[in-house]
Amino acid sequence: MSKPKGFEKPAGVRDYLPHVVDKLRAIERNVLDCMSRWGYREMMTPTMEYYDTVGVASSTSDQKLFKLLNNRGTTMVLRSEMTAPIARVVSSLLKEEPLPLRISYHSNVFRAIEEEAGREVEFFQTGVELVGDDSAEADAEVVALAIASLQAAGVKKFKIAIGHVGFLNGLLEQTLPGRHEEQQKLKDELLRRDYVGYRDTVAELNLPSEQKKELEDILRLRGGIEICKQALELSSSLARYSIAHLCKVWEVLEAYGVSEHVLIDLTMIGDFSYYTGMTFEGYAAELGFPVCSGGRYDNLLGQFGRPAPATGFALKTNRILDGVDGLEVNIEGPVLIRYNAPQRKEAFAEAARLRQLGSKVVTRIVNSEQELAAYDNKIQQVYSDVKTYVSWT
Amino acid sequence: MSKPKGFEKPAGVRDYLPHVVDKLRAIERNVLDCMSRWGYREMMTPTMEYYDTVGVASSTSDQKLFKLLNNRGTTMVLRSEMTAPIARVVSSLLKEEPLPLRISYHSNVFRAIEEEAGREVEFFQTGVELVGDDSAEADAEVVALAIASLQAAGVKKFKIAIGHVGFLNGLLEQTLPGRHEEQQKLKDELLRRDYVGYRDTVAELNLPSEQKKELEDILRLRGGIEICKQALELSSSLARYSIAHLCKVWEVLEAYGVSEHVLIDLTMIGDFSYYTGMTFEGYAAELGFPVCSGGRYDNLLGQFGRPAPATGFALKTNRILDGVDGLEVNIEGPVLIRYNAPQRKEAFAEAARLRQLGSKVVTRIVNSEQELAAYDNKIQQVYSDVKTYVSWT
Repeated sequence: MSKPKGFEKPAGVRDYLPHVVDKLRAIERNVLDCMSRWGYREMMTPTMEYYDTVGVASSTSDQKLFKLLNNRGTTMVLRSEMTAPIARVVSSLLKEEPLPLRISYHSNVFRAIEEEAGREVEFFQTGVELVGDDSAEADAEVVALAIASLQAAGVKKFKIAIGHVGFLNGLLEQTLPGRHEEQQKLKDELLRRDYVGYRDTVAELNLPSEQKKELEDILRLRGGIEICKQALELSSSLARYSIAHLCKVWEVLEAYGVSEHVLIDLTMIGDFSYYTGMTFEGYAAELGFPVCSGGRYDNLLGQFGRPAPATGFALKTNRILDGVDGLEVNIEGPVLIRYNAPQRKEAFAEAARLRQLGSKVVTRIVNSEQELAAYDNKIQQVYSDVKTYVSWT
Repeated sequence: MSKPKGFEKPAGVRDYLPHVVDKLRAIERNVLDCMSRWGYREMMTPTMEYYDTVGVASSTSDQKLFKLLNNRGTTMVLRSEMTAPIARVVSSLLKEEPLPLRISYHSNVFRAIEEEAGREVEFFQTGVELVGDDSAEADAEVVALAIASLQAAGVKKFKIAIGHVGFLNGLLEQTLPGRHEEQQKLKDELLRRDYVGYRDTVAELNLPSEQKKELEDILRLRGGIEICKQALELSSSLARYSIAHLCKVWEVLEAYGVSEHVLIDLTMIGDFSYYTGMTFEGYAAELGFPVCSGGRYDNLLGQFGRPAPATGFALKTNRILDGVDGLEVNIEGPVLIRYNAPQRKEAFAEAARLRQLGSKVVTRIVNSEQELAAYDNKIQQVYSDVKTYVSWT
């Protein structure tokens, strides 16, 4: 590989110029403030974690983990998400804290380079974890907070699709008992949203046509609360239990007054190996990919020695930053105060006074009348105001 | 090495629990707001940079750089400071922007593990770069802004020591012309503040006693503006030029009304290979080590293809976080709203109303009168207020 030149930055990473930072900071502040008003407290964890613990426990597939060796030869990862690090802290530093715990974060996370064009290696996530509550109330709380967070981030039109891993697990195990390879193939197709592939796979299954129809029918299980009622008819007992839980979540979401933003999508599955109950994804009207995702993960905390149910979500902050134009950011330029040496003290006093009032002020010395005149041409567009303190002797 | 256990985090890194994050966020917000009011705009850059460009250009010594290989075998670094990355951006993405440019940042940075106990591998810096202005006004501006930033961070009692690399370079080259090894030894001793070693080295030099005295005397060159006058008498022409510049900086700092916080320390040197002019360090009364450092680096931008003078500083944010108790952080607990299912909607409406007003609110369902009574014992200390919406049928 050729030597990088002076202006190069590595592939897949990004510089945020001031006007972009202003918007990112507005999203960060608004969303964290929103989470704080719901009783969530912010936590920060290190960029590097042990591969063997946090890396393995994370919801990121192994080949997407950004691995490195530390100077003792131990494999480390750059954190790929914040749920596993927070589980580690809840099980160690916070192990005496009574549950439920409400934690929020805004953090950069890392994924190993993928060959897809434009995919970022480092990006931001803003999210929460609610640890120690396995109720439908808790599931509904994080969905309602995801809705409030998207609104705080300036996303105006969006839908939250909720599903439940128990529904598909139950239905597949009932229809294809013990046939794990075929089950996995169908799940993978649903995860990729490859519905054509799913239909083909179902058609080729060695199954009575009635059961094939049942498997095909789940592709239609997307809509309002009526979907739950439909699903209750066709499902196994595990699937029925999952559906009943979703009905309760819906009821609580109605009490929050946010069910207009929610639809039920029983074909939606998160990462099966990680989620254990309700899962959800948020879609903005403007964008073709999720802007948030979350769900219940009741088995993770146990891996860190403090078994507890938990649920949470993360906004895909960079996608909102790049794809949604909802937040107004104050872009007023600073006041320029020009002075020469004899008037320096007065100029600085005025700058200090304006800064005290919250204004942005840039000061600049001018050493001659010519210099003063030369500026006048182009400064108007950059500065909101120009003040001049000069005296020539 | 033994396998890490569930609760372990890597050595030298840190978890920030909510009460610490509240304080860190208050410092970050106050300092960035202060910098913004001085016309500095925040920028963010990637965690990883190429070793060959940004790594080598940074002010961090090679053995302290945190190096890793990317998946193409190129050596990368986790950024060790923000000055070199910002120089890269100013020379590339911002190369059409007119100078001077005022940039601020708040960022985590990385150093390879050192054997010293308690030394952090990852920590925060909050700072500015002023690019494109080589005047004494610019040097004074960053010192005055460092003072305002320390105050914004809650540091109440502190001193800024200013020096100039040209003074020592000039004096040593005049006294020990061409004797670079001896010059370097003396510089290293001053950098380590090993004044005993410095005196011993001077005593052993093959030099007339008058010149030895001159070298010894610089240890006394610490104080107010009178130091500059003293130094002007004994110095070489390069040293005199440096001292004259410091006198001008002092004059501007007097116009800012902040010279009471400043002392001149001509024995102070930053990293010689990096700084080219005035350097400074800030010391808090409570702490034995610097809480900020900065200076002029007129040769760095040229390494990225856009030669320009520049000056800046960084607060050592973690040291302020841990060592200074100046900022008051609001630690009021949330309001707890308890409800049962029939009253859920009213409870959520009240929660929404209070959140709208800026309060923090946690909601919790109670499923029986026994459950309600059981909570009452310990909730008072955690919550600022408790409201209850229940009706039993």
